[in-house]
Amino acid sequence: MIVTIIGLGLIGGSTAIDIRQQKFADSIIGVDSNPTNAAGAEHIGLVDEICELEDGVKRADLILVAVPVNAALKVLPKVLDLVNDNQVVADMCSVKGKLCDWVKYHPKRQRYVASHPMAGTEYSGPWAAKAGMFAGKVAILCDTEDSDIKAVNLVRRMYEAMYMRIIFMNSANHDVHTAYVSAISHISSFALALTVLDKEKNEKHIFDLASGGFDSTVRLAKSSAAMWQPIFEQNKDNVLIVLDTYIKYLQEFKKNLEDDNNEAVYNMIDEANRIRRVLK
Amino acid sequence: MIVTIIGLGLIGGSTAIDIRQQKFADSIIGVDSNPTNAAGAEHIGLVDEICELEDGVKRADLILVAVPVNAALKVLPKVLDLVNDNQVVADMCSVKGKLCDWVKYHPKRQRYVASHPMAGTEYSGPWAAKAGMFAGKVAILCDTEDSDIKAVNLVRRMYEAMYMRIIFMNSANHDVHTAYVSAISHISSFALALTVLDKEKNEKHIFDLASGGFDSTVRLAKSSAAMWQPIFEQNKDNVLIVLDTYIKYLQEFKKNLEDDNNEAVYNMIDEANRIRRVLK
Repeated sequence: MIVTIIGLGLIGGSTAIDIRQQKFADSIIGVDSNPTNAAGAEHIGLVDEICELEDGVKRADLILVAVPVNAALKVLPKVLDLVNDNQVVADMCSVKGKLCDWVKYHPKRQRYVASHPMAGTEYSGPWAAKAGMFAGKVAILCDTEDSDIKAVNLVRRMYEAMYMRIIFMNSANHDVHTAYVSAISHISSFALALTVLDKEKNEKHIFDLASGGFDSTVRLAKSSAAMWQPIFEQNKDNVLIVLDTYIKYLQEFKKNLEDDNNEAVYNMIDEANRIRRVLK
Repeated sequence: MIVTIIGLGLIGGSTAIDIRQQKFADSIIGVDSNPTNAAGAEHIGLVDEICELEDGVKRADLILVAVPVNAALKVLPKVLDLVNDNQVVADMCSVKGKLCDWVKYHPKRQRYVASHPMAGTEYSGPWAAKAGMFAGKVAILCDTEDSDIKAVNLVRRMYEAMYMRIIFMNSANHDVHTAYVSAISHISSFALALTVLDKEKNEKHIFDLASGGFDSTVRLAKSSAAMWQPIFEQNKDNVLIVLDTYIKYLQEFKKNLEDDNNEAVYNMIDEANRIRRVLK
């Protein structure tokens, strides 16, 4: 099988490594609008060759769209315009509602499978690609009733070859749940980085004291603006709701601390500890 | 050398493992007001024997106080009342100002070294004790001009045996910097856990979607209320200042998102990315 990957960053690049290793793909074609990324991905062997989008799409059995969500709105319709009834297209974006709405009435909608493999690191670009990054994580397939069943099964097999667990969800629900779990984690981390860089003028102190918990909490703040700003934009309504709740809890915590209500502070922490039940 | 450790939790227990392994201590006596922790620590071999505080203090060359900061206010003066001029006492607490003020005029102040080894995990109790947890991390010694120089050197040698890097700081500065880096990380994580547990009623979704960044950001929210509520209480003024700034950034982020000011959202993330310069 020939797989063309459009977008050779962390997600596209890591997928390339895994599907090659698992022999899901016999050959991998790369497409990237950024010539440095394209050349880099070819140089380090993520892809067998680089070509232009049109050529790359035409030659593939499966086309993966692994670009930021705003770029996907432009790329996906273009790809669907080019495919025939034997080819399959899947995107790997983190917001699903707008993209699914966008191509809902495209004549080739059935060839498209909306998917979101939930894995990553805080690094980006082809050099960040990592073997096995997806293993043991969840891949969400959305609105599969709008896709051809064989197309869904092909994409499913790919994620299973990457050792992912498959979950089905409609795109609206997907966006609610990812806002509630993933987007707010990133916002809390971005704001934490801004706060510490603001209050702590001496970067040496940040470095020295980071082992007190800051290092793990701020990790996500290294995530790229090019990926995340469009995610927040496309999932704005859900993100605003959860951000409101987050600020509300912080204000409650602050009020309790100001009022020397030690019992209430203790209880909030104790309540937060319930997360141990969910995550080990 | 005989070392008595008062408080056989994560910090006291992990210290016991390291100083025994490095042959800094020939024998380790444990003291804990919680009989389950005491029996557990003895059973798993963290300490050679358990005894009462008075007896434990009298028999030791070095006494380590590794209890939560509120308990330390009671324990430390009691310990100093008991020691002679050859014994050394060090605490391992996360807030230093109030404790140092508390014993400033104690006749045995010189026998006491205020210290804070900045390492830990989100787990607690003797069963959470971990070999090598302190290695490569920073140990802060505070207000050492109030301590006997030989006492300071002994405590310094202990942390060096645990492969820690030593930093000197006055206790007031210590409390500012730890609030700015460590306390706010924990508050952001506690509030994140509360938010997600509140918005996401389905715990299965939290579990499934946690790999999207939530798992690393929420890790600290498992930290115990018994340890952290007293830290926030004792370092209240500094914590409130940094918490204000944190909430301010979140509100700015929210405003930009509401106003569809995508450029401003992008710039905030980009600015947060500067943390990459400080932490790899």
